[in-house]
Amino acid sequence: MIDELVENVINRQRRHIARSISLIEGGDDQAPELLQKLHKHTGKAWRIGITGPPGAGKSTLIAELTKKLREAGHRVAIVAVDPTSPFTSGAVLGDRIRMPDIEQDDDVFIRSMATRGSSGGLSARTADAVDVFDAAGFDYILIESVGVGQVELQIERVADSTLVVLVPESGDQVQAIKAGLMEIADLYILNKSDRPGSNSMLQSLYAAVSFKGKHNEDWDVDILQTVASEGQGISELILAIEKHRHFLERSGKLQSRRKSQLEERIRNKVYDSIQASLWTPQRLAYLEQALESAQRGDESPDSCASSIVQDYQNKK
Amino acid sequence: MIDELVENVINRQRRHIARSISLIEGGDDQAPELLQKLHKHTGKAWRIGITGPPGAGKSTLIAELTKKLREAGHRVAIVAVDPTSPFTSGAVLGDRIRMPDIEQDDDVFIRSMATRGSSGGLSARTADAVDVFDAAGFDYILIESVGVGQVELQIERVADSTLVVLVPESGDQVQAIKAGLMEIADLYILNKSDRPGSNSMLQSLYAAVSFKGKHNEDWDVDILQTVASEGQGISELILAIEKHRHFLERSGKLQSRRKSQLEERIRNKVYDSIQASLWTPQRLAYLEQALESAQRGDESPDSCASSIVQDYQNKK
Repeated sequence: MIDELVENVINRQRRHIARSISLIEGGDDQAPELLQKLHKHTGKAWRIGITGPPGAGKSTLIAELTKKLREAGHRVAIVAVDPTSPFTSGAVLGDRIRMPDIEQDDDVFIRSMATRGSSGGLSARTADAVDVFDAAGFDYILIESVGVGQVELQIERVADSTLVVLVPESGDQVQAIKAGLMEIADLYILNKSDRPGSNSMLQSLYAAVSFKGKHNEDWDVDILQTVASEGQGISELILAIEKHRHFLERSGKLQSRRKSQLEERIRNKVYDSIQASLWTPQRLAYLEQALESAQRGDESPDSCASSIVQDYQNKK
Repeated sequence: MIDELVENVINRQRRHIARSISLIEGGDDQAPELLQKLHKHTGKAWRIGITGPPGAGKSTLIAELTKKLREAGHRVAIVAVDPTSPFTSGAVLGDRIRMPDIEQDDDVFIRSMATRGSSGGLSARTADAVDVFDAAGFDYILIESVGVGQVELQIERVADSTLVVLVPESGDQVQAIKAGLMEIADLYILNKSDRPGSNSMLQSLYAAVSFKGKHNEDWDVDILQTVASEGQGISELILAIEKHRHFLERSGKLQSRRKSQLEERIRNKVYDSIQASLWTPQRLAYLEQALESAQRGDESPDSCASSIVQDYQNKK
């Protein structure tokens, strides 16, 4: 049955692609076998992570990017991991109106991921979902995520090119950059760049980028200006993405980047699997007892922990 | 030898307190025994977490708070987990000048924690260090941490009262609140509240707090104004902290809060211990091989992970 599903995914059947991702999201027992069999068909898609604060216009940018990529004949999958995204079901109606031209295109697949659970779990499920699209022959996979917040996807662990989208309006964005987006950006996009404050925001960005120096694998982080709602700057953005792609491919850094992403995925899967076998109802009951004893001062966190670990290592 | 160290810590010997924390920071083999023996002497100190963006004046506020607490006869320990703090060795000289009055006081102990390693590891080491100060009879333990950034301490997992310090200057702070500080604040402090923009910042804070409603264990989050550099508002702050303390104590929420902190600590220690026995040189070598095989498409992340887990569970 999994073999048939794999066959249909590779033959680009939408219904089976959707079903595969549901299996992954639901943590189905058959998901590992499915992923194992799809894995050899992956590695061809270019995975673009798009992040930035709410209101930066990420979804509009993704819609325009998708249209341009389609004009060039590419197949595009969109994975929305942002609960505020109009691509996800929770979006307000007004926002969804913009998307019909790409939503009715058979070579575009839009999927939102449920953002429940830990950020590690979310990254794992997203990476697995991206593998399904990759195996299904999509040329570009666009992953939309919020940059900061409660349900944060570590998008740089899933993407080949990470785009950070900002707007001129406020210095808030600079704070957001400081808070970690800086480290992950391969390209900055100053969207809504026809608005006031654009120049000073650009200056802040150039300053931030030059301060950063050569940290980012010798890649000179690009800064682009777009007005996504009018389609401005999208072709230049695609060129910049291609430039980054060629840089990674020629320098051999694509392979090392994907290798470290793969390592992270394997380590997380090992961790999840051990957690599942560790926290049996018996050990959870012991933990509860131990907590009370630790609160009375009879045991320390270290001694409780080592009892649990010893029990696990003896009984497995 | 550990018994002697424990004895001396309880007898408030500075040299032995410092040595104990060094053992913890260095991950010494004897640290668990030390912590086990200190544990029954803990639970009396009030642990105050102080967080907020760089430049909010956290260190000045801590110095003033310390002076006032000393005037009331309390012993105060300061644990700086903020790499930008003047309490840490990396600080610029100019900033350190402010601290001599508290630095030369025998009932004040200032210690900075190395912020290398994971944020989980940092939280664990900080919680252990706080236990040492607690056992050494310090009445108040002030833990200073940056709110957002690369080396983030999850301060709400270590503190009884969490203070979020902001300044009027910029809307940046509101962004920071959205980015997660909101969820953890028991008290907001608008420092430098004599500066322009103070009123509109206060309004944003009141709006944010009322929007939040009753999430925070039925505690009505307080907002205080200070000018720490002139000692203004510090007495009111101490009263507000006491009010929060009494709330937690009377409502029984102190015990449940400390219990869930303890659970987190135990779970992290279990995780660390399993990680240490899992990633032997042999398994790391296997992981390296598996990665290459996965990159060729021969194996999937799931199959690599399950081989490692099976090997771990068979051989332990």
